[in-house]
Amino acid sequence: MGSLQYNSQMIQKITVSTKKRQQMVDITAAIQKVIGQSGVDDGIIHVYCPHTTAAVTVNENCDDSVQRDITETLARLIPHDAEYSHSEGNSDAHIKAALMGSSRSLFIEGGKLGFGSWQGIFLCEFDGPRTREIWVKIYAER
Amino acid sequence: MGSLQYNSQMIQKITVSTKKRQQMVDITAAIQKVIGQSGVDDGIIHVYCPHTTAAVTVNENCDDSVQRDITETLARLIPHDAEYSHSEGNSDAHIKAALMGSSRSLFIEGGKLGFGSWQGIFLCEFDGPRTREIWVKIYAER
Amino acid sequence: MGSLQYNSQMIQKITVSTKKRQQMVDITAAIQKVIGQSGVDDGIIHVYCPHTTAAVTVNENCDDSVQRDITETLARLIPHDAEYSHSEGNSDAHIKAALMGSSRSLFIEGGKLGFGSWQGIFLCEFDGPRTREIWVKIYAER
Repeated sequence: MGSLQYNSQMIQKITVSTKKRQQMVDITAAIQKVIGQSGVDDGIIHVYCPHTTAAVTVNENCDDSVQRDITETLARLIPHDAEYSHSEGNSDAHIKAALMGSSRSLFIEGGKLGFGSWQGIFLCEFDGPRTREIWVKIYAER
Repeated sequence: MGSLQYNSQMIQKITVSTKKRQQMVDITAAIQKVIGQSGVDDGIIHVYCPHTTAAVTVNENCDDSVQRDITETLARLIPHDAEYSHSEGNSDAHIKAALMGSSRSLFIEGGKLGFGSWQGIFLCEFDGPRTREIWVKIYAER
Repeated sequence: MGSLQYNSQMIQKITVSTKKRQQMVDITAAIQKVIGQSGVDDGIIHVYCPHTTAAVTVNENCDDSVQRDITETLARLIPHDAEYSHSEGNSDAHIKAALMGSSRSLFIEGGKLGFGSWQGIFLCEFDGPRTREIWVKIYAER
């Protein structure tokens, strides 16, 4: 049984440019790069979305149509142009972000994400296009 | 690279009184207070909701209307009075809580929550009014 | 204030056989068993679902009808046979899994899950029956 070692005093920040109002952007490669730079072999990575109209999730990254199905179904259930109290015209984006969630915790194994073969990590843009950030913290075994 | 130090052997418990059946209660200040009392400068905080008809989420805390839009949209999609199997009359609350989620992990930076400028942490009440608890654990760098 | 000790270099994997297309399987006892075997008294457990058509959530485990209400409501909101782009016929399962989430973090107290009296941990099957895995990592106080 080893103890824990914290890899960096700093939150690592990944910048993501989104192109559409609603879009799932695959950030798996960027996350893998941060893990590689950390030199951590085994541990845990906390992925955090600091925005209130965007979120983070994990899902299939082989077929783009899955990502389109997710955003289109959310748009059908929570329409952009329904009647809302909030006056900025992006209530749907806040609701989707609150539901999808702002944090996911994943495992690191052998210096890489230890996750399912078909899984990718996505920034979920619900009020783009914008420049967004995803923040990560890595904890390593010693 | 520093290692980790666990701030307290105890789970910290925050008590929240809700006033309505459905309500999002901003618990950001209470969470900040626990972080301040811990004396932790940098680390991670795990926020947990121990209830099955309430949840925890992160979203905008500047404009109350966003919170109303979230609860009203959930009430439209998952009505209180639809036909359900569960006989206690609060199935909608269980479904909303399962979807919204029971845990969020956030970062601590400079002795405060390191999160987005517009973000707040909310207890989501779906079957109130009740007295609820939110549990937190803080892990600090050494 | 104690520091942290990592309980195992390995991700612990729990195998779950699902019986239906949509089903919530209570994995609380299996998680408790892993905690018991670890010998950890206090700490945190990260529960992770490595699949893209299944998820993990926490909710009531006393009355089975709650679980049925959750899967039936999701099936009403996100129908299996709606029109989707993804050609494998399981888009609804991907959408439900992305929304429900792939990770939950819970506390360990006194050698057991420190969570609400009515709470259980569930694998949410959305495209079964299949053999699934749930992965966990435990971090212990020293």
